[in-house]
Amino acid sequence: MAVYTDVGDADLEAFLGAYDLGALLSFKGIAEGVENSNFLLRTESGNYILTLYEKRVAEADLPFFLGLMEHLAGRGIRCPLPVKGRDGQALRRVAGRPAAIISFLEGMWTRRPQTHHCAQLGQALAEMHLAGRGFGMRRENALSLSGWRPLFEMSRGRADSVEPGLETFVLAELEFLESAWPAGLPEGVIHADLFPDNVFFLKGKLSGLIDFYFACDDLLAYDLAVCLNAWCFEPDNAFNVTRGRALIQAYETVRRLDPEERDKLPILARGAALRFLLTRLYDWLNQVPGALVRPKDPLEYWRKLRFHRAVAGPAAYGLE
Amino acid sequence: MAVYTDVGDADLEAFLGAYDLGALLSFKGIAEGVENSNFLLRTESGNYILTLYEKRVAEADLPFFLGLMEHLAGRGIRCPLPVKGRDGQALRRVAGRPAAIISFLEGMWTRRPQTHHCAQLGQALAEMHLAGRGFGMRRENALSLSGWRPLFEMSRGRADSVEPGLETFVLAELEFLESAWPAGLPEGVIHADLFPDNVFFLKGKLSGLIDFYFACDDLLAYDLAVCLNAWCFEPDNAFNVTRGRALIQAYETVRRLDPEERDKLPILARGAALRFLLTRLYDWLNQVPGALVRPKDPLEYWRKLRFHRAVAGPAAYGLE
Repeated sequence: MAVYTDVGDADLEAFLGAYDLGALLSFKGIAEGVENSNFLLRTESGNYILTLYEKRVAEADLPFFLGLMEHLAGRGIRCPLPVKGRDGQALRRVAGRPAAIISFLEGMWTRRPQTHHCAQLGQALAEMHLAGRGFGMRRENALSLSGWRPLFEMSRGRADSVEPGLETFVLAELEFLESAWPAGLPEGVIHADLFPDNVFFLKGKLSGLIDFYFACDDLLAYDLAVCLNAWCFEPDNAFNVTRGRALIQAYETVRRLDPEERDKLPILARGAALRFLLTRLYDWLNQVPGALVRPKDPLEYWRKLRFHRAVAGPAAYGLE
Repeated sequence: MAVYTDVGDADLEAFLGAYDLGALLSFKGIAEGVENSNFLLRTESGNYILTLYEKRVAEADLPFFLGLMEHLAGRGIRCPLPVKGRDGQALRRVAGRPAAIISFLEGMWTRRPQTHHCAQLGQALAEMHLAGRGFGMRRENALSLSGWRPLFEMSRGRADSVEPGLETFVLAELEFLESAWPAGLPEGVIHADLFPDNVFFLKGKLSGLIDFYFACDDLLAYDLAVCLNAWCFEPDNAFNVTRGRALIQAYETVRRLDPEERDKLPILARGAALRFLLTRLYDWLNQVPGALVRPKDPLEYWRKLRFHRAVAGPAAYGLE
């Protein structure tokens, strides 16, 4: 939860002066999101989210993220739509930070995913993958295979302080993934961070996807592997194959997986688990005194990774 | 800013089942408030705030706070109105905490109070004092004169680590206030924490008072002294007598101060400054690792207190 940068009265007024949204009615910091500062903005024309992009989001990537949301929303994907000012621009600055207003999506994220949530997620993920085709911009995934080793180097010396043996474990995993990572699978725009808190449901139906600030071009099936990690484990880190099957089957009603994608799913799942293990490990070891965000447990992903290493094949995820 | 306790899907559904508010549309933690967990709740019938009362609020005091809001709202004070369930109760439990839904007030708090804000505040404060008459419950002010010395004892040993000489300074101040604190001034229900973030403005007009969780029975003029401290100093801790005069004059258009209240205003202002110095000092020295709230600077109130000690009389605040 986070509001890192507050916005003063005069700054807010000047900022809103660039838009045709009517008078300001309410402005409250939202205790969700980790990377940026988010505010619920109510004006005479409706509800919006104002996001101030903090240091961890590269300013040069913002046109990609905002352009992607606009592209997807224009193709029927329920996601926030960047709101443009009278100058036609969605991206500007306030309180010293890049900032944008996006439309407000109703719905709540589920704290405890059930099978029906996973099925709806699978369908929406595949629809997003298809809708991403034709988006004219590209962004490399900085948190994919080539980024993991340099990321680990920043934590390596203290990894065993978090869990004895973690350094050796991660080095072996990196070596394996660097040799086994699949080439030639279908690529496209992926969300890359589609955790439960980024998926809204309204009266039991999926109502929207949010937070596209890790979106990039990468293997489509890797996005599915991220979701298997984030949605299909029980709180005790046992894999729930019913949820996994629901996720994958629903995905395939929209976009059929290639045989090669199905085959490589265990490796992709290992990579996805390692990615979140590494970022969480870094955040765990580099807590800023006075930070307003509780770091997430890296060992949750170490446990998930151990599950993926032990699976016999794609059937472990519910693939038939 | 704070959400200390999250609410699971099933818990929220069961909780809302006790109300007639229509289907849930949105539920977001709000990054405001220090003592409790607050959520913006949107349902088919409108916007609400759900508050989960955390440990620093005594459960036994909740009927006073909720009853007071209802009493004041019924007498025309723009403040949140507790929403009752079908059983007629406003207070129940969710996620292991006492909890209540209150109405949502539009408006924003001002980050930089101006003279016109102070004038509107003064009028609203006096109106609240008059409206509080006839409220049938009582609550002692635990953070008034008799509470200050025990509170300081919990910080005393480390006070000089925050500012050399602070221990001696506070002890002298306690001794003075214990001998000089006025008796016999008009009493009633006071807000006791009417800082800028608890006062909303909409299109330049005061639209509501919130956060009654320090409200209690005490000297009415002490509430005015809290506001002089919280609203009328510049960022460099210089007192702005124009704002002070506006605050007091507007207050007196609704409720005239007694000569004795005017006379004692410098002492009341010292007491109010000491109260916030002491609570901030305690929070500063007792930061919880992983807490999601940045402690406020206690020395801001040490500086304000030094101003109050130096004033020649009530005229320093703009009283004629």
